[in-house]
Amino acid sequence: MNKKMIQVREEILGSNRKIAAEVRSRLEAEGVLVVNLLSSPGSGKTTLLERIVEALKPDHAPAVIEGDIETERDAERIRRKGVPAWQITTGGACHLEAKMVARLLPEIPAETRFLFIENVGNLVCPAGYDLGENLRWVLLSAPEGDDKPKKYPSAFATAHCLILTKSDLFPVLPFDPERAAREALEINPRLRVFVTSALTGKGIPELVRYLVECRDTLLRGRRHA
Amino acid sequence: MNKKMIQVREEILGSNRKIAAEVRSRLEAEGVLVVNLLSSPGSGKTTLLERIVEALKPDHAPAVIEGDIETERDAERIRRKGVPAWQITTGGACHLEAKMVARLLPEIPAETRFLFIENVGNLVCPAGYDLGENLRWVLLSAPEGDDKPKKYPSAFATAHCLILTKSDLFPVLPFDPERAAREALEINPRLRVFVTSALTGKGIPELVRYLVECRDTLLRGRRHA
Repeated sequence: MNKKMIQVREEILGSNRKIAAEVRSRLEAEGVLVVNLLSSPGSGKTTLLERIVEALKPDHAPAVIEGDIETERDAERIRRKGVPAWQITTGGACHLEAKMVARLLPEIPAETRFLFIENVGNLVCPAGYDLGENLRWVLLSAPEGDDKPKKYPSAFATAHCLILTKSDLFPVLPFDPERAAREALEINPRLRVFVTSALTGKGIPELVRYLVECRDTLLRGRRHA
Repeated sequence: MNKKMIQVREEILGSNRKIAAEVRSRLEAEGVLVVNLLSSPGSGKTTLLERIVEALKPDHAPAVIEGDIETERDAERIRRKGVPAWQITTGGACHLEAKMVARLLPEIPAETRFLFIENVGNLVCPAGYDLGENLRWVLLSAPEGDDKPKKYPSAFATAHCLILTKSDLFPVLPFDPERAAREALEINPRLRVFVTSALTGKGIPELVRYLVECRDTLLRGRRHA
């Protein structure tokens, strides 16, 4: 990256941080826990969210912001679960920014308790942009390979949780979940690791319990990071 | 993206295009066919390259440039096949640029006939950067889902070939290769589609034949795009 590019990027990141802090503070005041989901395309972000909103819905109102380059497909999938969802299409940009989330705040229903933001599928660029979340999750699916954390470190370095997905495929793929977790923990020892399968439901109750605990802590006015 | 960012990006892209044209022209003069491989992390770029260089090696000298954010892992995998390989670690940047390839040109052995450049695993950003290639391949693996072309259109719009990978997993995954190909062809009707499995070897002989034909055409001084 040349000097001019670095300077412009620093300005953008600075302005993004300010807006993210405002988003976080407004949603915290409303009692909403915000989760930002990062991963490669096809790691299973939307399918995991389908399962989580189903599990949360009876007791805790969830809502979802979907980020994609193009198409409304992911928001439509969430809406079919009877959950409010908004699609942000970036039209080419490789990550979401806090201002895109800020624009949607007036539309979020008052009863919302959990807001999930599914970032653009990209294990690199979204890591640099705070969206006002309380929790950042990085997903790694079994077919991607257990060598990915050290090759794409910044998403793992900035996340609170590592969610290993598609665990139903562990038996048929050369994927060692312990190696993946160990590599990620070497980058970021504070990561909390979950093993999930949206197909079998493995790990979903644990994630839901964790989310509810995090929101309780948020309501008690503590920090989660 | 704000105006200043767009302006800086345009300057960078302009300078990249110039360097890419020089790279292409120098390598064409040496009779080297250059392939730029784009995909998400974990779609199987390195594993496909391992199979292709094995198949090419006896008759046609291949060489490989590996792009990653961090680690020398992929270049080491190729070197274990007895094939020259160089690792570019971008240290955070989400794509390769032509100047990174240009710097390596003096090291490429004179006998080289095929140069493969494996881009950083990212289905978004690398699409904007010409590296001086003759052919651009976009890989899509079965576990990523058949809905990806329209969600991440620019890699598919700018590629010459769509390589569906991990076809051995078609029977156990909800992936429809015809839907994936149809979506990609709606974006870019000129795409040539290959179905491959690095595990079973499916599609590798067809890809190798295609590469050899493309290089013959290149030597006859025609364009491939």
